[in-house]
Amino acid sequence: MFSAFDHAMMSQALRLAKLGQYTVAPNPLVGCVITLDGQIIGQGQHQQAGSAHAEVHALAKVDELVQKGELQRAQLAYACAYVTLEPCSHTGRTGPCADALIKAGIGQVIIAMQDPFEQVAGRGIAKLEAAGVKVKVGLLEAEARVINRHFLSIVERQRPFVTAKLATSLDGKIALANGVSQWITLAPARQDVQRHRAQHACILTGSQTVIHDDPQLNVRLADAPPDLIQTLALNPVAQFSQPLRAIIDSHNVLDEKYQIIGKATPSSPTHVFNATNTQLSANGKCDLHDVMTQLAQRQISSVWVEAGAGLVGALLTAQLVDELIIYQAPMLLGDAAKDAIHLPTLTAMTQRIELDITDTRMIGRDIKHTCNVIYPKG
Amino acid sequence: MFSAFDHAMMSQALRLAKLGQYTVAPNPLVGCVITLDGQIIGQGQHQQAGSAHAEVHALAKVDELVQKGELQRAQLAYACAYVTLEPCSHTGRTGPCADALIKAGIGQVIIAMQDPFEQVAGRGIAKLEAAGVKVKVGLLEAEARVINRHFLSIVERQRPFVTAKLATSLDGKIALANGVSQWITLAPARQDVQRHRAQHACILTGSQTVIHDDPQLNVRLADAPPDLIQTLALNPVAQFSQPLRAIIDSHNVLDEKYQIIGKATPSSPTHVFNATNTQLSANGKCDLHDVMTQLAQRQISSVWVEAGAGLVGALLTAQLVDELIIYQAPMLLGDAAKDAIHLPTLTAMTQRIELDITDTRMIGRDIKHTCNVIYPKG
Repeated sequence: MFSAFDHAMMSQALRLAKLGQYTVAPNPLVGCVITLDGQIIGQGQHQQAGSAHAEVHALAKVDELVQKGELQRAQLAYACAYVTLEPCSHTGRTGPCADALIKAGIGQVIIAMQDPFEQVAGRGIAKLEAAGVKVKVGLLEAEARVINRHFLSIVERQRPFVTAKLATSLDGKIALANGVSQWITLAPARQDVQRHRAQHACILTGSQTVIHDDPQLNVRLADAPPDLIQTLALNPVAQFSQPLRAIIDSHNVLDEKYQIIGKATPSSPTHVFNATNTQLSANGKCDLHDVMTQLAQRQISSVWVEAGAGLVGALLTAQLVDELIIYQAPMLLGDAAKDAIHLPTLTAMTQRIELDITDTRMIGRDIKHTCNVIYPKG
Repeated sequence: MFSAFDHAMMSQALRLAKLGQYTVAPNPLVGCVITLDGQIIGQGQHQQAGSAHAEVHALAKVDELVQKGELQRAQLAYACAYVTLEPCSHTGRTGPCADALIKAGIGQVIIAMQDPFEQVAGRGIAKLEAAGVKVKVGLLEAEARVINRHFLSIVERQRPFVTAKLATSLDGKIALANGVSQWITLAPARQDVQRHRAQHACILTGSQTVIHDDPQLNVRLADAPPDLIQTLALNPVAQFSQPLRAIIDSHNVLDEKYQIIGKATPSSPTHVFNATNTQLSANGKCDLHDVMTQLAQRQISSVWVEAGAGLVGALLTAQLVDELIIYQAPMLLGDAAKDAIHLPTLTAMTQRIELDITDTRMIGRDIKHTCNVIYPKG
């Protein structure tokens, strides 16, 4: 049983955790709130892989109060730490957080969810309990799983979480028959795309998009929404890094004349999947499951897809798209215009791909739907 | 200048007017509220063409109060009648309402908009003023024009107001490649369609839809939403009649084996536009402007289009669709599935048809957008 106060404090810890969404990958998002007598005495979030964990930031605030004499260390036996993910028990690039909580003398720890990462997986909880700390698990677990869907995908499924983006007219078209697509959606929607690019470890596209648009597919912080910049400022320990650009070029048609390849740098890298470095499917194209496996091996936990109907359709057909974001512009382009998604011809309605719309909002004059993708069975 | 009370009373009159939406065509929707000393002493709405006008219903309520001795007729010099459309000055199937208001001794009349119908067109206002009634015009005129867009279309443009309906997947498809379309949208959306059919004087479709679906395209009150039935019950003087079914059959391919023709009756009529009775365009198909002119001559003020991509596209190309209603089901069907709208191939983004979305809501699990159609210039 958790109290209303417990729920409020874990909500706060989840809110803090999300502040790391642009900088923690491939680590999980974690927030920590430490309370005593109904007051918050310390809080913080994990800001970047390799830097201090959330619990360490929160305990540092508690230490400040102890140093100032505003708090006695013995009082911490009555303190409670709310953490959105099981405290770690292993020494990675930082020391184990379970040990830090024990050493600080925190009397109780409430955890949203156990960490499925094999080096933790219950050992943090066991270590706390062995030291006499009272531990409760499962408060707002569903919410914690949602914010960490990228991290959980790579740990639990050994592949990245994949979100595909579409920008269409209200009749489902992404470009005129002659290829003209500038502009269907307007500037606010394209600015919103900058936010999504920044939330992902990798941006995936196909060779046809590179040839047609010669895009940069990087995050342009100057074009980003203000809240992205504000969130980065709340993580002083962290530094934003550009997502990996990945291109499917099954037939090795691309070269350095395209800026996504020619202008790639160590801090803004590009990886090209082609027949040389990737398993091929029966159709002679890069096997998309192998692409995802290779990305997982590179510690890529999330992929943002901006591509044409062919690659988006192939990813959907391979049941690799977890989430779809559709920007719809209020216009009609007619049947001669280009479709958004190439799928094999459906012969029965049971073969349809269903969408569970989790959010709908206006972005400027365009509509944005966020959808979980539900594949047909069998 | 109109007071807050004036606005509230005209809003009430507009609300009453809309109660006639299923039964007044081809007449305008009209509501009337009569007040004295801040109280409503009579109100009513036009319920059906050929029956009493709104002012007559409202004055009858006032008369009841006079008969009961609750009101002195002399007091009516201080009464105000709020009417959503200029009171008529001519004798049609009923006597002139301007005369009725004068005879009742109503001291002031506030009118939302002048009636553009040529037999009125300011004469009602002139008659009231000549009799010493104080008249003000223009309160909530924009709102009054919206509820009477069907009536105004036929009076001002000599053609019906045309609303086309689409039911698509989120990627813009209306059926699988093999024609299967049952079901993309679910029962609540289809029930909502019954409401729209009932609001229109005519349901228009094409020969291909008749051949493919053999639809009835009538209003099935048993399948209608409860509020439609409740609204009809608030108009005891009126009787609901089925919309005219109209079919474009340019090549005379239909016959009585289709139920929309074979089962037509005087109370549920069907009219077929074909090469025999309709002007043909250069492409050998029925000229859609001539179709609309003929419908206007039959006193059809509103057309609800349920048709395939060909006819919907042709109506859009002829710039005859005023409003579009799109039901979108949360699913993907892919590029092999059938498109919603056949248009000539666009070569520049300036040729797009823009949509001004006036309403978006969920109907069960489907999305419904209501849009004004904005055609490219030139």
